[in-house]
Amino acid sequence: MNKIEHVGIAVKSLKTAIAQYEKLMGVSSYKQEHVASEQVNTAFFKVGVNKIELLEGTGPDSAITKYLEKRGEGIHHIAMDVDDIYAQMRRLQEEGFVLLSQTPKRGADNKLICFVHPKDTHGVLIELCQELKERDNDK
Amino acid sequence: MNKIEHVGIAVKSLKTAIAQYEKLMGVSSYKQEHVASEQVNTAFFKVGVNKIELLEGTGPDSAITKYLEKRGEGIHHIAMDVDDIYAQMRRLQEEGFVLLSQTPKRGADNKLICFVHPKDTHGVLIELCQELKERDNDK
Repeated sequence: MNKIEHVGIAVKSLKTAIAQYEKLMGVSSYKQEHVASEQVNTAFFKVGVNKIELLEGTGPDSAITKYLEKRGEGIHHIAMDVDDIYAQMRRLQEEGFVLLSQTPKRGADNKLICFVHPKDTHGVLIELCQELKERDNDK
Repeated sequence: MNKIEHVGIAVKSLKTAIAQYEKLMGVSSYKQEHVASEQVNTAFFKVGVNKIELLEGTGPDSAITKYLEKRGEGIHHIAMDVDDIYAQMRRLQEEGFVLLSQTPKRGADNKLICFVHPKDTHGVLIELCQELKERDNDK
């Protein structure tokens, strides 16, 4: 694992949270993106080589909407940057971790992603993410 | 803010969590430290330029013990590396954020630290931290 790619934060209103995080971080959000497959709107902030991702659910079935109903606003997940998500998924399964999908999914910010079940990580939702290269996008 | 210095994770048993995070991260914990002022035992993992900090409370008054009672195990805080913690504290107070201490405290891993109240950050406990230099330690 190369670095913490980002920390994901579940918020009720992306608009309100963006304004507050711009004050907190002292920088503007550099990208906002809707991810239809996950039913989320996202906003990204750079902090050096890392990012903060704000997440707002866009429907009742969104994992973020459900998280907000259960736990309220707060830190939702930590994403780890990896070079080879398939190799990491194999390694973690061999170590006994449960993955939330058997193949990587397409996430926000041009990434392949896979989540590790929080029951095996002391309550922490860990996302593995691998940056898509141009040739991967052509597939 | 320079980078995410670390993400802090509240766990019931540091020993059990260290073993599991060694499997998860694929590396050993490089440092364990008791912080008497915060009533915590900590264990650190490197992930590139970032760190994961596992935290176990050592008494009933520890913030980590109280967090575990209320929310269970999971992500406790995000720490942001800053060059000048005093300047950042002033800036945030001017922006209307509430700080949990009026002066920085001595934290784990040779840092000056200050927390921002989560009511102003959409439920996220943000720690500011500044690496202590040798001359600061001599003070």
